[in-house]
Amino acid sequence: MDYSALLEEIVDELAGQRGCGRVADYIPPLASVDPNQFGIALMEADGREHVAGDAEVRFSIQSISKVFSLTLAMQHARDDLWQRVGREPSGNRFNSLVQLEHEHGIPRNPFINAGALVVTDVILEVLADAKRTLLDLVRQLSGAADAGFDDAVADAEAASGHTNRAMAWFMKGFGNLRGDPEAVLDAYFHHCAIALSCRELARAGMYLAHRGCTLDGTCMLSPQQTQRINAMMVTCGAYDAVGDFAYRVGLPAKSGVGGGILAVLPGHFSACVWSPGLDSAGNSMLGIRALEALTARTGLSVF
Amino acid sequence: MDYSALLEEIVDELAGQRGCGRVADYIPPLASVDPNQFGIALMEADGREHVAGDAEVRFSIQSISKVFSLTLAMQHARDDLWQRVGREPSGNRFNSLVQLEHEHGIPRNPFINAGALVVTDVILEVLADAKRTLLDLVRQLSGAADAGFDDAVADAEAASGHTNRAMAWFMKGFGNLRGDPEAVLDAYFHHCAIALSCRELARAGMYLAHRGCTLDGTCMLSPQQTQRINAMMVTCGAYDAVGDFAYRVGLPAKSGVGGGILAVLPGHFSACVWSPGLDSAGNSMLGIRALEALTARTGLSVF
Amino acid sequence: MDYSALLEEIVDELAGQRGCGRVADYIPPLASVDPNQFGIALMEADGREHVAGDAEVRFSIQSISKVFSLTLAMQHARDDLWQRVGREPSGNRFNSLVQLEHEHGIPRNPFINAGALVVTDVILEVLADAKRTLLDLVRQLSGAADAGFDDAVADAEAASGHTNRAMAWFMKGFGNLRGDPEAVLDAYFHHCAIALSCRELARAGMYLAHRGCTLDGTCMLSPQQTQRINAMMVTCGAYDAVGDFAYRVGLPAKSGVGGGILAVLPGHFSACVWSPGLDSAGNSMLGIRALEALTARTGLSVF
Amino acid sequence: MDYSALLEEIVDELAGQRGCGRVADYIPPLASVDPNQFGIALMEADGREHVAGDAEVRFSIQSISKVFSLTLAMQHARDDLWQRVGREPSGNRFNSLVQLEHEHGIPRNPFINAGALVVTDVILEVLADAKRTLLDLVRQLSGAADAGFDDAVADAEAASGHTNRAMAWFMKGFGNLRGDPEAVLDAYFHHCAIALSCRELARAGMYLAHRGCTLDGTCMLSPQQTQRINAMMVTCGAYDAVGDFAYRVGLPAKSGVGGGILAVLPGHFSACVWSPGLDSAGNSMLGIRALEALTARTGLSVF
Repeated sequence: MDYSALLEEIVDELAGQRGCGRVADYIPPLASVDPNQFGIALMEADGREHVAGDAEVRFSIQSISKVFSLTLAMQHARDDLWQRVGREPSGNRFNSLVQLEHEHGIPRNPFINAGALVVTDVILEVLADAKRTLLDLVRQLSGAADAGFDDAVADAEAASGHTNRAMAWFMKGFGNLRGDPEAVLDAYFHHCAIALSCRELARAGMYLAHRGCTLDGTCMLSPQQTQRINAMMVTCGAYDAVGDFAYRVGLPAKSGVGGGILAVLPGHFSACVWSPGLDSAGNSMLGIRALEALTARTGLSVF
Repeated sequence: MDYSALLEEIVDELAGQRGCGRVADYIPPLASVDPNQFGIALMEADGREHVAGDAEVRFSIQSISKVFSLTLAMQHARDDLWQRVGREPSGNRFNSLVQLEHEHGIPRNPFINAGALVVTDVILEVLADAKRTLLDLVRQLSGAADAGFDDAVADAEAASGHTNRAMAWFMKGFGNLRGDPEAVLDAYFHHCAIALSCRELARAGMYLAHRGCTLDGTCMLSPQQTQRINAMMVTCGAYDAVGDFAYRVGLPAKSGVGGGILAVLPGHFSACVWSPGLDSAGNSMLGIRALEALTARTGLSVF
Repeated sequence: MDYSALLEEIVDELAGQRGCGRVADYIPPLASVDPNQFGIALMEADGREHVAGDAEVRFSIQSISKVFSLTLAMQHARDDLWQRVGREPSGNRFNSLVQLEHEHGIPRNPFINAGALVVTDVILEVLADAKRTLLDLVRQLSGAADAGFDDAVADAEAASGHTNRAMAWFMKGFGNLRGDPEAVLDAYFHHCAIALSCRELARAGMYLAHRGCTLDGTCMLSPQQTQRINAMMVTCGAYDAVGDFAYRVGLPAKSGVGGGILAVLPGHFSACVWSPGLDSAGNSMLGIRALEALTARTGLSVF
Repeated sequence: MDYSALLEEIVDELAGQRGCGRVADYIPPLASVDPNQFGIALMEADGREHVAGDAEVRFSIQSISKVFSLTLAMQHARDDLWQRVGREPSGNRFNSLVQLEHEHGIPRNPFINAGALVVTDVILEVLADAKRTLLDLVRQLSGAADAGFDDAVADAEAASGHTNRAMAWFMKGFGNLRGDPEAVLDAYFHHCAIALSCRELARAGMYLAHRGCTLDGTCMLSPQQTQRINAMMVTCGAYDAVGDFAYRVGLPAKSGVGGGILAVLPGHFSACVWSPGLDSAGNSMLGIRALEALTARTGLSVF
């Protein structure tokens, strides 16, 4: 498969659609991102890399960070992780409090905001400097030693994150957040504010396509743990559009409101697309179309 | 891979758990099934078959029929199929009317009861004898020329299916059921009442593992349509436990309250397990454990 | 208080608003009613009657019949009436199935459709000809010996009442409807299809303002039972706008989608307003304004 | 009517039930209240007072304070008060966030926690020292110049009020809380922590039975505003048991989890009962029975 040519083709064909969708506007640093950007990167399991479009521009990874937080939590897993957070698709908006109330403060899965807050709380219980440890993990996985938090984003999230704050206090009320909600929120907002490029994120996700290990042989998770994260990416990774995403794209993936989507085909590749315009479910509109083209043309999918 | 030995091993190891779970008891013909039965069958993509336990005993396929109904509907697809039924996991009981009300009579997906009723309505619109056509399809796929409807089951469903009847009329009220609800229910209840053995169902499911075609080369669906059904089996195939099922088993699958589960690994095999005892979500308790053992031991899964 | 003058005044002042709101259009016989009609009648506890506008035109009483059904059910009360139907406002549309599912087939109160269906089922259990008995009761209370069912309305309700039919079957599924759902629906649709004028309805409601007895001394209910029906009219009588209705009007009342509202001031009067245009909650828009004027000008209300 | 004898009779007859129900235990200062206490006080519109049982013991008025907050807000009413809070019964737990999410941060009514937080926010916008002004109002109405905040209660509420905090931030997220959520919560927790006796609360509520004016002639609200608060007490005053309360008691009332209930019969009396044991809806179990006896024996009710 000549992925380089294919990625170029996809970027060319979708060029006319640059700017479609709606850029996340709940905080100024996201609202001001140029909507016409569109990048894609793919790393094969043998280490070959392919890029097209704005693949070297860093963007806010937002909810894609939830994959790395969960990886950290599973590495240090306490027995009760899956008592405190479920593994089912929510069927609701990512920031809904409704299920949280009906289900006594247990979030449906680790990829909605409430679930990621619990995962962050778990990490804070076991790691001295959880905020920093996650950044170190991301640097290691991506090879981007200079990757960091976008403080403007983190600060804006903190200043306007009323619903996430409500969620944290709500779970505190149910006893499912053990630490100080403000500390959990601070770590969570920073994790979301990490900035990476498509190329860096595709590299960072390679362990998910490679049985839990980076290409240099460092193993983050067991093969079974890796399959399980991939499974959750299929059932819970695309907000409340997971069914549609699986139907159209057919790959384990996690999206973020920054417009990025990390997708993997186990045994074959790790890929990342980015374009800031979102669809109504909060997934990158052009990103989904690019991934759809990728699997349609190659005939590859996990299904 | 010596699947015959593996299946025997699994059946032996789980022997002590025969009878666990709770047999569906909402109609007498299901309630009276011997709970200690447990069978498994696997057909490889090269046609080799492997069975263990009660793999030749026929049981009521129940919701597994929804896969075949959807296949028929996609064969005769009208453009508006996906306007009338969604593709998202429901996150609710399979017979819930709540989402139907909030979402104006559009069921979440074709694998919950409401969705299957719409699919049945679609089939009834295009086929002269929809009830019979589905049975013929199942006979063709499974090679079981004598397979038929278990009339005791179909009659009992009709006599006690108040909630399904409510659902059908509710959707009629929203204009999303076009035919006579009683005719739709009659076909639906009969489809659920088809009886097949594990061996027959594993054969019947082979087209899902084989790019849409049976091993004798008859193509039911395009490769892409097949991937899409498999995708929906992952995101919607195990009632409201799809996340847990994907996490533990990692295969596209569809379960039925008769205790059967049809699961496929595209390119590799089609398998069917059966044991009548259900867990709280309505999936065969032993069936899930058997499939979990199958993927854990082989390391195989779509993820 | 010169009620005759007051009613004339109100009808005059609101004349310019005749036709506002939206006439119920789910069945042709209601949709074709002239929206410009507007009548009001008030009967004092001493028997004096006052009317203005189209007070002698008969209209479909629709849900106002639920008050008379409940009266019948309380007369023949079985101990379990309040186990089968609640007494709380629903906070939802009158035809919602959501609470019914969450609350296991027990309707919130007797004045929403589901509750009235249970009340009808209760009546059918104890009375030989429940459909006729209710009509007789209404004739007796209103003095309108020739009042009857509007068969065009009853037939149209039956033909298009899919949601009510769904509700009946749904409750049957929960075991909270004991008779044949179709028989319950038939009685229910006929009760809703009784036609009366404002003058007749004001007379019919007098027992609610007169401690359970008609002015000729026939007692339908005990004083306490009457207070209780009045209490339920305040908390449940105006669909999901009871709070607003109590705030603005301040009288026990029951509305119907035919545009009628029956309201009483215990010890003082029984009143009926009618105008077909409805607000978004399903209450007569002009009817509420007329009652609001009535209580604002007189300063009278139960509060 | 000899109310003194009647109250004594009621207190005697219910003596054997002292201690029934469950004392609120979410904060230590409430959990430690002696459950066997039971007091009742009634003030007639002519100023005569009647008491029985523990009518002089002060208790935490909790949600009864919501009536006084609303009175203050209506005195200083901004046009948009009823755009920011509804007037409908919630049909849900008093601390539910579900409706708040579905209804975009607009609480159903001013007597559930979310609604009272908005009312408090409204007061904070118009009054220099809102916390103090409410206490002054309560002192004036009750004649209890030494009434004050129970700081142990206020502090405990603040320390454990995670769900209320979640609610405040959630509404902030919807833009329906304008001030600092922590300041709103502080005022709210203090208002709930005011301590009064039955006698004092019965006096304080007299303006609601007296067309908005105290017996010494100071008018707090217009007659119509007073009717409207009474109407809301009927439709929203007893948590999610308003229908049952209206059915059994038939008076405008507001309950609190401290075990108090303030009830009025316009034109006749203001009454307060108190006993700490609560029923499952959060209303004083003995309190409701006492009020039920009061209206059953006298035949008096607003209906």
